[in-house]
Amino acid sequence: PADTVRRLKQDKADPDEIAKEVAKLLDMKAQLGADEGKQKFVLKTPKGTRDFGPKEMAIRERAFKAIISCFKRHGAEVIDTPVFELKETLTGKYGEDSKLIYDLKDQGGELLSLRYDLTVPFARYLAMNKITNMKRYHVAKVYRRDNPATTRGRYREFYQCDFDIAGQFDPMIPDAECLKIVHEILSDLQLGDFVIKVNDRRILDGMFAVCGVPDSKFRTICSSVDKLDKVPWEEVRSEMVGEKGLSPEAADRIGDYVQLHGGLDLIERLLQDPKLSQNKLAKEGLGDMKLLFEYLTLFGITGKISFDLSLARGLDYYTGVIFEAVLLQQENEHVEEPVSVGSVAGGGRYDGLVGMFDPKGRKVPCVGVSIGIERIFSILEQRLEASEEKIRTTETQVLVASAQKKLLEERLKLISQLWDAGIKAEMLYKKNPKLLNQLQYCEDTGIPLVAIVGEQELKDGVVKLRIVATREEVNVPRESLVEEIRIRTSQC
Amino acid sequence: PADTVRRLKQDKADPDEIAKEVAKLLDMKAQLGADEGKQKFVLKTPKGTRDFGPKEMAIRERAFKAIISCFKRHGAEVIDTPVFELKETLTGKYGEDSKLIYDLKDQGGELLSLRYDLTVPFARYLAMNKITNMKRYHVAKVYRRDNPATTRGRYREFYQCDFDIAGQFDPMIPDAECLKIVHEILSDLQLGDFVIKVNDRRILDGMFAVCGVPDSKFRTICSSVDKLDKVPWEEVRSEMVGEKGLSPEAADRIGDYVQLHGGLDLIERLLQDPKLSQNKLAKEGLGDMKLLFEYLTLFGITGKISFDLSLARGLDYYTGVIFEAVLLQQENEHVEEPVSVGSVAGGGRYDGLVGMFDPKGRKVPCVGVSIGIERIFSILEQRLEASEEKIRTTETQVLVASAQKKLLEERLKLISQLWDAGIKAEMLYKKNPKLLNQLQYCEDTGIPLVAIVGEQELKDGVVKLRIVATREEVNVPRESLVEEIRIRTSQC
Repeated sequence: PADTVRRLKQDKADPDEIAKEVAKLLDMKAQLGADEGKQKFVLKTPKGTRDFGPKEMAIRERAFKAIISCFKRHGAEVIDTPVFELKETLTGKYGEDSKLIYDLKDQGGELLSLRYDLTVPFARYLAMNKITNMKRYHVAKVYRRDNPATTRGRYREFYQCDFDIAGQFDPMIPDAECLKIVHEILSDLQLGDFVIKVNDRRILDGMFAVCGVPDSKFRTICSSVDKLDKVPWEEVRSEMVGEKGLSPEAADRIGDYVQLHGGLDLIERLLQDPKLSQNKLAKEGLGDMKLLFEYLTLFGITGKISFDLSLARGLDYYTGVIFEAVLLQQENEHVEEPVSVGSVAGGGRYDGLVGMFDPKGRKVPCVGVSIGIERIFSILEQRLEASEEKIRTTETQVLVASAQKKLLEERLKLISQLWDAGIKAEMLYKKNPKLLNQLQYCEDTGIPLVAIVGEQELKDGVVKLRIVATREEVNVPRESLVEEIRIRTSQC
Repeated sequence: PADTVRRLKQDKADPDEIAKEVAKLLDMKAQLGADEGKQKFVLKTPKGTRDFGPKEMAIRERAFKAIISCFKRHGAEVIDTPVFELKETLTGKYGEDSKLIYDLKDQGGELLSLRYDLTVPFARYLAMNKITNMKRYHVAKVYRRDNPATTRGRYREFYQCDFDIAGQFDPMIPDAECLKIVHEILSDLQLGDFVIKVNDRRILDGMFAVCGVPDSKFRTICSSVDKLDKVPWEEVRSEMVGEKGLSPEAADRIGDYVQLHGGLDLIERLLQDPKLSQNKLAKEGLGDMKLLFEYLTLFGITGKISFDLSLARGLDYYTGVIFEAVLLQQENEHVEEPVSVGSVAGGGRYDGLVGMFDPKGRKVPCVGVSIGIERIFSILEQRLEASEEKIRTTETQVLVASAQKKLLEERLKLISQLWDAGIKAEMLYKKNPKLLNQLQYCEDTGIPLVAIVGEQELKDGVVKLRIVATREEVNVPRESLVEEIRIRTSQC
């Protein structure tokens, strides 16, 4: 460019020449820009995903602990499966949602997809190992190419915490236990008021039949009903009649049913309903629903359970009881920007899924629950921020420090002894750190004790133990230091 | 087909006609076969992956517990990152191994790849959050499209347990801690004898320089050296000279060095080496190696450390100390088919990686270790099988049982009370299970206690508590049942 400008000056060239050279220069500049653009690296996680830093992890592990404790309390074993499955394993299990499955690139070999939930891998596991009887939990990430609304706690990579009971048992006993588990976990996490909506695929199908919905339209009408938690009945009705071609009379009959919700009284009423009581499926479903409510009464949890005829749930594989737990926004919540809460757990009975994998089609009845942990994180995170509670991200009991210079070797010897005795200990990675900096590190990270070595202490065969909170200092003989640290941090 | 045969018989057709019809029939048969083939579902996990059932999970969690305890003992925080990264994040970090990266299918949007290790995501995390100082661990699955030798504990999906220290510190203090951690974990897991080989990229590069390897051949000669743990020197030499075009003299000079291993004495000798001591890089590396061994002496672990000039390690990003822990086959091991043991941990210093992500190229020096848990699992699994130790896969403390029929409601009430009190309890999902079956279930699953309700017990306000191991039975008042179960299972 400098050359060009010089040449232009020397030549006193005509405007055309100048214009041409300017164009050339602009071209060169554009090329440089493009190259710079290529160099520029996008420093981010993929869309719909996030990192968990130490603070978020501390919150996450608290929630996991509560959930896994509950699963273990109910006697579940734990399994793990690969993050991807053969593509065909997932095919035909999720209905319309199949388009949200992540596929892996065909790099030769098998066609693979990332798991979409933990239920289908569990069914595949049971069939593959010919297991007909199992109570297991599985906590792992699942993947959905959804349009993420990450502010509302929706992600493309997210954890599910699943508990399932597989096996041929007497009706509704495992189903009731699943609801008890949801109740225990949501109570334990203290997420505020909640309700667990319950319905049954057989009641829905029976209802559609007696309302005059043609068999071929069950699925699509069911997915319309599923929207009732977000849009009012009038809109759902016009979708049924307008887009899906249902007769207005049938729609109105559905409307009368799906706006009902209640408890045992409603079940009794519907068992007497002249139309529903004539339908075999509905009758079966209602009979089991009654039994379920009897068991839930013994568990003392019917106060938070609502038999709700509008609950449909999307997944194809449910065959019986379905349920969904919803957090209720507190009336007196004065948070600045309230988290839009919603479904935090869901599940149901899927008696046909294992049979889809078994070479001979042998069925293994299953019922299970999935805790949607990401929304729960969002709530816990927001609450923690509001509370100004300081959360520790390490468990270090003691910092090994020195009061004078040239004591690195002594610190290394001491910390090594502490580690070998099982004490959680840190030191600053400096040859000659200032005592003030060492004490400041304890303040910043919440380390409760400092073991200080100095010339005098070495001579006396002691270590000066400082209690950070009180600034108290005591000389402890080296041989009793481990015991002293254990005692002083036993509540940690 | 039946029609065709009939027609052929009736028509008494000529051979051509028959041949044509036979061809048609064969075609139809082939089509039927193909359809059957499509129906046949392959019931398996993807190549190179495995499920972990309850028993394997129990072993896995034992190993994780030992490893994570150690990381926490050294004051590490924990983070988690997404299972996939932007493809460009992984580009140019793994040298030749890049071909083993799993890509996701382009379904619109960003190009993604499954993570290949936990180090690159950690560096991306540091740069993205402008963190210049952090000690963290990360336990998660990584993915490599390797040819799996699953019998030797190599998989395409496998866990890594990583501990890294990022920050500008005084030399070799964090590096020494990483080696201490490997030593603690391998000792704690009691995997048998092991050795931790140590080298330094700067010593390797300095050695190549003084041996007369041209700069452009450093990488490829380094990867030849890396094979020395599997093939003898003569083979490696002929690869260097034959395939890679190194002069025989240079190769022989390398041969003299890479067959050396030892401790402080060897370091001192090489510091006096007339050629190496003239090379700036080698001198720096040897100086730091000496310091490292001094710190390791203070930690008391030099007995298992070997300074080994043949250790090269493949990954591109290492810049200083590198190390690898290898299990040694016991001489007296009389297992039927001995697990081919090998590298179970590795790591090193990578001072340039974070700078590759930082928009301004700011460097954050890092050193870290990765525990390769799959081989450790294989060994623990094999050992457990050999030992016939019975491993429990649940933590259930008590089975709620009934002695007579029609007591389902009473069992449900009691188990609900136990769950609410935090007791781990199960019951059989049957209305009227036989007492014998209930006791058998405890035997099978290792549940230590049975809480039996019967007509008489209900009248008396007690529960019969049976200790499975001794068959002892005691009547416990209902109000003290929880306490009694806690006391009797406090060692669990």
